[in-house]
Amino acid sequence: MKDLESLSASQAARALARRDIKATDLLLACLDRIGQRESLVKAWSSLGKESALARAKELDKGAIKGILHGLPIGVKDLFDTYDLPTSYGSPIYANHHPAADAVSVALMRQAGGIILGKTVSTEFATFKPPVTVNPHNLKYTPGGSSSGSAAAVADFMVPLATGSQTAGSIIRPASYCGVVGFKPSFGKVMLAGVKSLSPSLDTLGCFGRSVGDVALGVAAMSNDLALAEIAELHNKPRIGICKTNDWSFASKETAGALALARFSAEAIAKGVVQDIALPTACAELTLIQTRIMNFEMARALIFERMQFGKKLSAQLFQQLSEGAQIPYEQYQKDLQGAHQARSSLAQLFDNEIDLLIAPSAPGEAPPAKDGTGNPVFCRGWTLSGLPCINLNISSGPNGLPVGVQLIAGPGKDRFLLSVARAFAQALPDPVLRDQA
Amino acid sequence: MKDLESLSASQAARALARRDIKATDLLLACLDRIGQRESLVKAWSSLGKESALARAKELDKGAIKGILHGLPIGVKDLFDTYDLPTSYGSPIYANHHPAADAVSVALMRQAGGIILGKTVSTEFATFKPPVTVNPHNLKYTPGGSSSGSAAAVADFMVPLATGSQTAGSIIRPASYCGVVGFKPSFGKVMLAGVKSLSPSLDTLGCFGRSVGDVALGVAAMSNDLALAEIAELHNKPRIGICKTNDWSFASKETAGALALARFSAEAIAKGVVQDIALPTACAELTLIQTRIMNFEMARALIFERMQFGKKLSAQLFQQLSEGAQIPYEQYQKDLQGAHQARSSLAQLFDNEIDLLIAPSAPGEAPPAKDGTGNPVFCRGWTLSGLPCINLNISSGPNGLPVGVQLIAGPGKDRFLLSVARAFAQALPDPVLRDQA
Repeated sequence: MKDLESLSASQAARALARRDIKATDLLLACLDRIGQRESLVKAWSSLGKESALARAKELDKGAIKGILHGLPIGVKDLFDTYDLPTSYGSPIYANHHPAADAVSVALMRQAGGIILGKTVSTEFATFKPPVTVNPHNLKYTPGGSSSGSAAAVADFMVPLATGSQTAGSIIRPASYCGVVGFKPSFGKVMLAGVKSLSPSLDTLGCFGRSVGDVALGVAAMSNDLALAEIAELHNKPRIGICKTNDWSFASKETAGALALARFSAEAIAKGVVQDIALPTACAELTLIQTRIMNFEMARALIFERMQFGKKLSAQLFQQLSEGAQIPYEQYQKDLQGAHQARSSLAQLFDNEIDLLIAPSAPGEAPPAKDGTGNPVFCRGWTLSGLPCINLNISSGPNGLPVGVQLIAGPGKDRFLLSVARAFAQALPDPVLRDQA
Repeated sequence: MKDLESLSASQAARALARRDIKATDLLLACLDRIGQRESLVKAWSSLGKESALARAKELDKGAIKGILHGLPIGVKDLFDTYDLPTSYGSPIYANHHPAADAVSVALMRQAGGIILGKTVSTEFATFKPPVTVNPHNLKYTPGGSSSGSAAAVADFMVPLATGSQTAGSIIRPASYCGVVGFKPSFGKVMLAGVKSLSPSLDTLGCFGRSVGDVALGVAAMSNDLALAEIAELHNKPRIGICKTNDWSFASKETAGALALARFSAEAIAKGVVQDIALPTACAELTLIQTRIMNFEMARALIFERMQFGKKLSAQLFQQLSEGAQIPYEQYQKDLQGAHQARSSLAQLFDNEIDLLIAPSAPGEAPPAKDGTGNPVFCRGWTLSGLPCINLNISSGPNGLPVGVQLIAGPGKDRFLLSVARAFAQALPDPVLRDQA
């Protein structure tokens, strides 16, 4: 058997359910790995070692609790936890101890998950560079805002970790760190207990090292347990490659990743893969997402801006001030624009395609000192509310991972998992096929 | 001038803005009234007398801060406040002090409002009878779950108070207490910082003693400040009377209230007011609302159920256990049903009418010992997401108030306020016209 910490979440879950391995041993292996690597990677904002060990022992003794039985989990520090401090990535909440778990965290515990610790979030899940670095090369960013979760999963510190995406905070770090990231349909996972930034956009999901892993995670977080069982893909899906309206931001490696993705897509489509342009109603998708996010964030963080303005980074304070200047009428117009864009995408999926493949990020991870990278290729998909999965597919000039995202129609999370698994199985590189 | 505590929020706001009255004097008048009546009515779960007085003095000295400058406000104890305890109506949170204000509370403070205290909520805004009683007759319920807010405004303890509605928690207590209650469009007021029960339904709003009051309140809570300026109604609205599919629950006094409402409606419609049946896609609206609420509440309160099950009332524990049994597929089907019902109502408003008038409650307030009354006439409208306003229109056999609700099309909050004011102005009883 492999080292326990290198088991994927779904491999580990199966072994735990069969009592082939002990939750305690898996946890100790993860803690060992964290001990070796954390001083370099800096993925964690807090660890609950003692409580996690106590819980693991309990789980090893008792009945199988649920689909996450005995799995150590990293929780992004934007999610409330009743037993671990929760800072939302901000010094304002440096000593904050929430009274309750976020709903999604409580549901993961109910399913038998062990909350091992909190992973680093950027400041209120925005753009200030975090302490966390990319485990593949410590000079580079892991992306953000779910920086610690993506890095911890990529570095084998933990098999599963939660994330949230308002602009590009799951798919982009998943791409930079070479892991599977799943942003399910908007509303699939309840937001309660996660710091609210932009209620029209905030979406919860998770990171794993395989499609099965993220299916397990979101199944537990949403309490839609059937989602964990990924059906085989029977019909030939109609697949489109979509360069989006932001293609000018794509580097050579992103263009290469998309070209590579076409081969696997053709294999599972058993035929032609079309190039699909976004509907005209989506012309301003990225711009509308940016304005809605800035408008809503200026309100969502009004308490912090009024009471603790000096403890906000200059960059965030500026962003909030700009958001507060956007007229209400513009916001209402943008919500209507978003609605029209969503309808046009629903029609596209009804009539023409079952799956879109698009860039996850402009390229491989930029240097850590330059920030967390540009979420431009994710903004529109977040606004669309459609389910998205990042898969690692190639690498860039610095040898860092480059992913693509697979996007399914409204509410088609189940189908997306099936097709993502088939797509991963069709990848030419056998190592990358492990993502299935 | 009238006693200060009997000024409506909009009267007081105008006088405060002109510096005709002092925030400190208004606050003291409210505190006097609370001193006289609170031992009977029991509307408050906590009062922040000292901090409110300090804030009033500050506001009297400084510039006009905003549209709520100097107004004392009651905040339902489901909303987080950083300076007052917040129990969500449950002993589980008896000593809970949130780290931050709810977004809507912070926005009210930003607009110059003075948070005077927290008003009684039923247990997690559900159905356990609260300590609060109806100020018109102490043997009767004020309704729930925004029990303290409706009672405090009705009893002249405070001119404005916040509420939330998941089933019928604003419109029903407004009807029972004879005040104006405004449940704006779903999503109009950000939910962040208010205990989440059912994210597909939870809607924030407020209580006042006039249409102008609730316009002020929701304008501040949503930061859509233009909403506070109610335009005159120029065109003749197409008005329908809608008995809904739950008419069998209506008492004689509710039938009488609806008949009375027809006269005022005809006056402002300057012609025929139609009877409107709900579209067929709305046949199961009430049932679907109930199932979605129970499904989502079982998840939203998962932490409390797992960790503090014994501190939940038997009634709520039972409701949550039942909600946890609803299959995910049923929930998804119900969400689709809700979507279709909303589309059919949007079409109805596009094609046939501008305003619906419907019952607010089955009748006048029931005895306090029998619970908070039946939300059956509100469930469907909450699910619809349409903006609703309760106006007091008559009274029942025990002399308690009976209201009707006015309902406008999707996003037509501004129009609803205009038409509600015109409707109130057309009421035959001059005392009731004060609601304009």
